[in-house]
Amino acid sequence: MSLENLSNIKIIAFDVFGTVVDWHGSVAKEIDRLNLGVSGNEFALAWRAGYEPAMQRVMSGELGWTVLDDLHRLILDDVLIQYDVTNLTGQQKRHLNKIWHRLDAWPDSVEGLTRLKSRYKICSLSNGNLGLLANMAKYAGLPWDCILSAEVFKKYKPDPDTYLGVAKVFDVAPDEVMLAAAHHSDLAGARGCGLRTAYIERPMEYGPTRVKDVSPNPENTLHAKSIIHLATLLQC
Amino acid sequence: MSLENLSNIKIIAFDVFGTVVDWHGSVAKEIDRLNLGVSGNEFALAWRAGYEPAMQRVMSGELGWTVLDDLHRLILDDVLIQYDVTNLTGQQKRHLNKIWHRLDAWPDSVEGLTRLKSRYKICSLSNGNLGLLANMAKYAGLPWDCILSAEVFKKYKPDPDTYLGVAKVFDVAPDEVMLAAAHHSDLAGARGCGLRTAYIERPMEYGPTRVKDVSPNPENTLHAKSIIHLATLLQC
Repeated sequence: MSLENLSNIKIIAFDVFGTVVDWHGSVAKEIDRLNLGVSGNEFALAWRAGYEPAMQRVMSGELGWTVLDDLHRLILDDVLIQYDVTNLTGQQKRHLNKIWHRLDAWPDSVEGLTRLKSRYKICSLSNGNLGLLANMAKYAGLPWDCILSAEVFKKYKPDPDTYLGVAKVFDVAPDEVMLAAAHHSDLAGARGCGLRTAYIERPMEYGPTRVKDVSPNPENTLHAKSIIHLATLLQC
Repeated sequence: MSLENLSNIKIIAFDVFGTVVDWHGSVAKEIDRLNLGVSGNEFALAWRAGYEPAMQRVMSGELGWTVLDDLHRLILDDVLIQYDVTNLTGQQKRHLNKIWHRLDAWPDSVEGLTRLKSRYKICSLSNGNLGLLANMAKYAGLPWDCILSAEVFKKYKPDPDTYLGVAKVFDVAPDEVMLAAAHHSDLAGARGCGLRTAYIERPMEYGPTRVKDVSPNPENTLHAKSIIHLATLLQC
């Protein structure tokens, strides 16, 4: 797609976990540091594996609206049992659960976002709750113009209310918003609502033992190797 | 109150209109620039006078949830009739209504917020909608860690859900949050919910024809001449 066709874009909304921050590396490092007798790599993958099913319980109505911090805690308690970790105090578990507030950005994220911010409004559009995303932004130096979250819309992605919610918040048409994400399913949800889409390659999202296929999908508006590359593609 | 007693504060939430930005001066200047045959000072005061009654219509249930941009437009249409202004196009009225997205910060706001941000999490807690506050932050350079708005809670201040909502978003106790505002009524609402309060003097909020009494109320935790002064009081 030529840049001319992209000239009406005003907002770039970013998926966060995996796209902007390295959840796997950050969680694995913390678990390894805690010396719990379980591999950080395995623990991180198991914790994240509970993510989609937990949100599904909310979206199906089985659970009322529940923020991601509380879902993370439900999953954590299961994973601790699974790996037979019994020596953490309540305070330590609360602190560990907030590792999702202290995730490291990928090396290109802050520079890429800062360049994009010079020309576009940039916001998060994450299933993380507002407090999690605000703490993470402060921790990792993410220069959002606005933090948007499933918590604002009381729906988890890929519910259309989340993608269309970004356009509504900024009072623009859906095709004036671009979603940038490392997940084709998220981008498909956005595309179905009329947003533009940019795929960001994150082959190491699931760590070195599960390298991700980052092949392009021609249905996306743009395909970028990093957020810096996205900024370059958009001439920022 | 001694600083020792303030050591548990983690979040400072700011009222925005009048406290952080100069709505009167910014709106009056725009109206004068437009040469509509009405004094900018009078027009700004009339527009703002419709603010409380409009929110009251939402809070009473007469109107369903309505964001402030839409309330501003309802009031604007009335004020244009009141002053017999008939020569604006639809596009011009939409642009004028968004003057509330382009308000200038008071001269001390950006420096004061930046200093406070080094030690606290700083957020807005405004009746303005998210898009309005995000556009304003970009326009005026306000360095929020997070933009919180009545729109997140679907309640207008002084509903307790807004003040307690800040504590809930950040997962802290109410007395770990301080509200900073130039309005005693807003601070009273926050105090009633257990938050700390800081009054910010803004004698010129309503312009030079209606200088505001900025006498201290001893019930507030702190009383500051500006946001820079608040940062100094909090040793930032």
